[in-house]
Amino acid sequence: MKKWTGIIIGIFLSVSVLGENGYRLWLRYNTIDNAALLQQYRQQLTSISCPSDNGRLIAAHEELQTGLSGLLGKKVPLQMAVINGTIMMGLPSHLPFIRTLVGESTLAGLGNEGFIIRTIRRDGKNVILIAGNKEAGVLYGAFHFLRLLQTHQPIQQLNIISTPKIQLRLLNHWDNLNRTVERGYAGNSIWDWQRLPGYIDQRYIDYARANASIGINGTVLTNVNANAMILTESWLQKVAALASVFRKYNIKVYLTARFSAPVEIGKLKTADPLDPEVQRWWKEKTNEIYRHIPDFGGFLVKANSEGQPGPQNYQRNHADGANMLADALAPHGGIVMWRAFVYSNESPEDRFKQAYNEFKPLDGQFRKNVLIQVKNGPIDFQPREPFHPLFGAMPKTPLMMEYQLTQEYMGFATHLVYLAPLFTEVLNADTHSKGSGYTVAEIIDGSADGHSLSGMAGVSNIGSDINWTGHPFGQSNWYSLGRLAWEPSLAPAQVANEWIRQTFTNKKAFVDTVQQIMLASREIMVNYMTPLGLHHIMGYGHHYGPAPWYDKAPRADWNPVYFHKADSAGLGFNRTATGSNALAQYQPAVRQQYENINTCPEDLLLWFHHVPWDHKMRSGKTLWETLCDKYYSGVDSVRWMQRSWDRMKDLIDAERFNEVKQLLAIQEQEAVWWRNACLLYFQTFSRRPIPAGYEKPDKTLDYYKALSFPYAPH
Amino acid sequence: MKKWTGIIIGIFLSVSVLGENGYRLWLRYNTIDNAALLQQYRQQLTSISCPSDNGRLIAAHEELQTGLSGLLGKKVPLQMAVINGTIMMGLPSHLPFIRTLVGESTLAGLGNEGFIIRTIRRDGKNVILIAGNKEAGVLYGAFHFLRLLQTHQPIQQLNIISTPKIQLRLLNHWDNLNRTVERGYAGNSIWDWQRLPGYIDQRYIDYARANASIGINGTVLTNVNANAMILTESWLQKVAALASVFRKYNIKVYLTARFSAPVEIGKLKTADPLDPEVQRWWKEKTNEIYRHIPDFGGFLVKANSEGQPGPQNYQRNHADGANMLADALAPHGGIVMWRAFVYSNESPEDRFKQAYNEFKPLDGQFRKNVLIQVKNGPIDFQPREPFHPLFGAMPKTPLMMEYQLTQEYMGFATHLVYLAPLFTEVLNADTHSKGSGYTVAEIIDGSADGHSLSGMAGVSNIGSDINWTGHPFGQSNWYSLGRLAWEPSLAPAQVANEWIRQTFTNKKAFVDTVQQIMLASREIMVNYMTPLGLHHIMGYGHHYGPAPWYDKAPRADWNPVYFHKADSAGLGFNRTATGSNALAQYQPAVRQQYENINTCPEDLLLWFHHVPWDHKMRSGKTLWETLCDKYYSGVDSVRWMQRSWDRMKDLIDAERFNEVKQLLAIQEQEAVWWRNACLLYFQTFSRRPIPAGYEKPDKTLDYYKALSFPYAPH
Repeated sequence: MKKWTGIIIGIFLSVSVLGENGYRLWLRYNTIDNAALLQQYRQQLTSISCPSDNGRLIAAHEELQTGLSGLLGKKVPLQMAVINGTIMMGLPSHLPFIRTLVGESTLAGLGNEGFIIRTIRRDGKNVILIAGNKEAGVLYGAFHFLRLLQTHQPIQQLNIISTPKIQLRLLNHWDNLNRTVERGYAGNSIWDWQRLPGYIDQRYIDYARANASIGINGTVLTNVNANAMILTESWLQKVAALASVFRKYNIKVYLTARFSAPVEIGKLKTADPLDPEVQRWWKEKTNEIYRHIPDFGGFLVKANSEGQPGPQNYQRNHADGANMLADALAPHGGIVMWRAFVYSNESPEDRFKQAYNEFKPLDGQFRKNVLIQVKNGPIDFQPREPFHPLFGAMPKTPLMMEYQLTQEYMGFATHLVYLAPLFTEVLNADTHSKGSGYTVAEIIDGSADGHSLSGMAGVSNIGSDINWTGHPFGQSNWYSLGRLAWEPSLAPAQVANEWIRQTFTNKKAFVDTVQQIMLASREIMVNYMTPLGLHHIMGYGHHYGPAPWYDKAPRADWNPVYFHKADSAGLGFNRTATGSNALAQYQPAVRQQYENINTCPEDLLLWFHHVPWDHKMRSGKTLWETLCDKYYSGVDSVRWMQRSWDRMKDLIDAERFNEVKQLLAIQEQEAVWWRNACLLYFQTFSRRPIPAGYEKPDKTLDYYKALSFPYAPH
Repeated sequence: MKKWTGIIIGIFLSVSVLGENGYRLWLRYNTIDNAALLQQYRQQLTSISCPSDNGRLIAAHEELQTGLSGLLGKKVPLQMAVINGTIMMGLPSHLPFIRTLVGESTLAGLGNEGFIIRTIRRDGKNVILIAGNKEAGVLYGAFHFLRLLQTHQPIQQLNIISTPKIQLRLLNHWDNLNRTVERGYAGNSIWDWQRLPGYIDQRYIDYARANASIGINGTVLTNVNANAMILTESWLQKVAALASVFRKYNIKVYLTARFSAPVEIGKLKTADPLDPEVQRWWKEKTNEIYRHIPDFGGFLVKANSEGQPGPQNYQRNHADGANMLADALAPHGGIVMWRAFVYSNESPEDRFKQAYNEFKPLDGQFRKNVLIQVKNGPIDFQPREPFHPLFGAMPKTPLMMEYQLTQEYMGFATHLVYLAPLFTEVLNADTHSKGSGYTVAEIIDGSADGHSLSGMAGVSNIGSDINWTGHPFGQSNWYSLGRLAWEPSLAPAQVANEWIRQTFTNKKAFVDTVQQIMLASREIMVNYMTPLGLHHIMGYGHHYGPAPWYDKAPRADWNPVYFHKADSAGLGFNRTATGSNALAQYQPAVRQQYENINTCPEDLLLWFHHVPWDHKMRSGKTLWETLCDKYYSGVDSVRWMQRSWDRMKDLIDAERFNEVKQLLAIQEQEAVWWRNACLLYFQTFSRRPIPAGYEKPDKTLDYYKALSFPYAPH
């Protein structure tokens, strides 16, 4: 896959052409620019010892050689001989001394994917050992080691053990067979279906490398709004070609299963999951898939949601549907990920409540190889949501997390929003399940309820743009998903720090400033879009920009007015017992905190309460004044991000500096648009002035209402 | 736009990441790998003298510095002082000595875009002068000079004068506002409308550089199946942002004008071109455009064709429509390109004849700033077409050429097909207009009929794929279009040769072999797809693969059976006087040659004759045998291309070698598919065996007929 062209001396690289276009992500491997450290590393790292030609170890060796040769600015040989500075990679089966060195119980604890990195003496030489029980562990160890170098860490006395806390660490691609991407803001799908299986794009390999480097071990190739065609012979050949590329990097391929496939491509009269013909069809189809892809991961299913077919079309429930697929997959070791993102076209019930209402009663009825995939919050990837009430409510069922990396509701690929703080906010939320208190992270990693199956998925923000994610900082969200799925307790600051160092530079002035920007960015976005618990007030359909006034959608719960409920009395959705009573879905301790307007966290206030405009907030200011403060503060903070970024000019390449600078300017304009449009609209209810001292909106509410974006990506 | 990061020594470049991913096109500027030549060039080229900070000269200086520094492997300074080896760039207004040196009449002959490159003595120093009347000429001269170096030409005694033969050298993008590309096979549109005008992608700059390097001076940004929205205020701001980038590179922006725009976005009741309100609307709209883009180029219009609205909706003719727009543009110096690709939904007339029938009678009725844009052949970009009968038939009207770079009918971005031989085949065709014989080239460049306005356009094959065109060799078609529009007499071999050297390597073994492949490739494709004058027998809608049997299209002239007319008697479309008599549209000399089955070129035979299966061809074999020979020869030749390419393995980078190798393998499979499907189908009429000795089709006709590609790009 990778070939060395030899040492190239004295080439001038044009920044725009060969330089920092973002394609290399966080795997840049530029030569260490700290001369002392480079000197040190060169002494400490001299060769790579490769005892095996196993496919997965080849990937690890190749990556290590690529990375080291780049970082050290000299070719590092692969050789059998062990000398001072050799990096030994291997399994106990290759290198039996590992058993004694590490100990059987530690080895066992590494499982299939864990690794150790240790400085040892071997045959009188100083060597660095990267070992695992299985090839995957060594691969992850190699990437971890390269991360240490890329972030300029000392490597004198390494003694690292690392295992993933979550078993399934996945990307979900909402990619269609015509190469469009639903909610994709970075170009087309990277899957070039037309030229598969014959043409293997280099991009597939680099995609796999990037995922492996952060521990992602599975990818769902197709949109949850599924197309049955992907399950037909000629398409499975294409999927198999991708699976062959990804296998070497410990990545399994999954597909979305359209529930009506037996009718659409199988010519059956029904897709009823209890119909024996239907069950047989899925068994045979699954067997066919495994003939093409022996390590196929399984199915992700969106059923009876937003028009997708499902078991309820046949008066069956979600467990009936999921179990049928699970039975077909079980003999092959495959799994079903069944999404809890459901809400009925017909039900007048608060949309917040519907997933819980449908799924909680089914707890305990799912097969062992089924996970329920739950979005982080009860509505739909809003800038801030409370944790989903299903977390902690289905102890007999493994629940996996679904985050969204693509910024459908967070400024597309135009706004700089670092999502790790959102991810960890949810992971750290205390569900108070079992009365004693368990965080969402403990639900997700299986420890709370003793599940061995566990998972975390991110809806991909990857497209055909050269830099993969459209916004250069979109890469950090992909990166964070992988890192947090491996170790949910990692701090967002730590993840940001290592991402910045690898992606841009280790220069302290840059790392410190940009880390500050990243850590603040999510709250800034909440402030200029949906402060204080506002949610779902964006443009209809494409979800671009603000439209709190919108009330023309074909269903009530697609309308912003459904969610903010502004009127002359106040603002917000009453979900207490006097309202929709969605709060009853949480454990008492959570419910009690949220249902009391005085103890409800103010950043969730309007999720749960219809609050009078003159309600006194903890600061002493009214709701209306605080709302204004938040929106204005959001815009001001974007300007602070701009000023901070401007100071980075001489610290990194011109190309990415200018890219981000331009995007921040758009973000500022759009933040002003959000602020003005929302405040002018809510003001028609509050009938109160925007506090003195704030710049006045320079456009009218009618102006903002008239804006139209028929070709916004969606 | 470009910054130098300094000399980077000892970096290892991973091929896959930093290397030859095709993004740099033919502007790679790698350091000269011939040590003696490098030494020579370094002595001959020492500095760049820059007497002006005019925007267009800045682009020339930047490019020259970028290019030289890369090619010479050392930074070449920009400085005022003239020393041995200085490259002086300038205009007579900056460097008055140019007037005396070159002479006024030569200078005048350069026009706005021509240039001279000359080795001279200046102040006792050896310098190279790159000069033009205008900045654009210097820019083109700089790119020409870099081409000399990239192709390892001697530069001791330069004395070059070059001027473009054709005035408007354009790309037509069939790009939609939702970022899809009609007939695009290289990903999405590179126009990221969503983030314009605020975000200027580096790609726009590199697109402009690439175009300027081959003399392209205009780009139509939007699909001819037009959307009126592009003419509204917020979209014009986006267009203006692109125009600002392109201006520096002498590239004007054009838009497609939807004829019904006055109704759709202007709220008028009609779009009748003779209605004063409509005329006023277009004038005001045009004025608005020029307020945004002072050097806007003009409109390209597809009207009354394939469902597009046009003047005929109001019982007016094409001249009425074109002239209305021309009058709006004239005060600003803009032009109208009105497409002759029309055929009526209702007319039963041979589609071949309709453009001529509609347009010839209007000759002389168009305003001075109107060109009629004519596709190279009478149907639609088929692998081989006779030249369009309008060429030579409208002496009072400037006709511009429309070629298609995107391989809609030629294997998408999967088949290696070098199109320059197709381009020049048409350019060199003798129209016999005026009785005396003028080639299409002389019609197009204006010399035949004394037109000062002239143009050539290529329907773009550019998309968001990293390598721009999907197939690495697709770049050669973009390159050829520019080079041939500048100088239509260039030989395809010359164009291929220089493209290969710049894009891959100057190694003789590679250049010779790949040039052979390229020059043969178009005829090979004709042979396995549509030999002997077959045309339009591809899959319906998406145009992927063969479907000569198809007869279900909603209009007769979208069906393959309409075009090949196979029956038990024979094959081909009788367009002689006993048939549709389309041949009457050519000059007598052409018509007489083509209407006689014995003088008609065999490669056009089935365009004009319904030929008996046993008709003796010039070889002595029957039509059926020859048809078989051609199809089999096409496949065999693809295999020859594969073998030839395999020998190139060690001469270039692994990445592009593997890419092309994989694509050739698909091309071979698809060539077999074309051959088998077409011969098995035609055999149902010919009732004759495939000659002995040929490999037998391994699939049945029914198998091929059952193939379905609902998600093929289209």
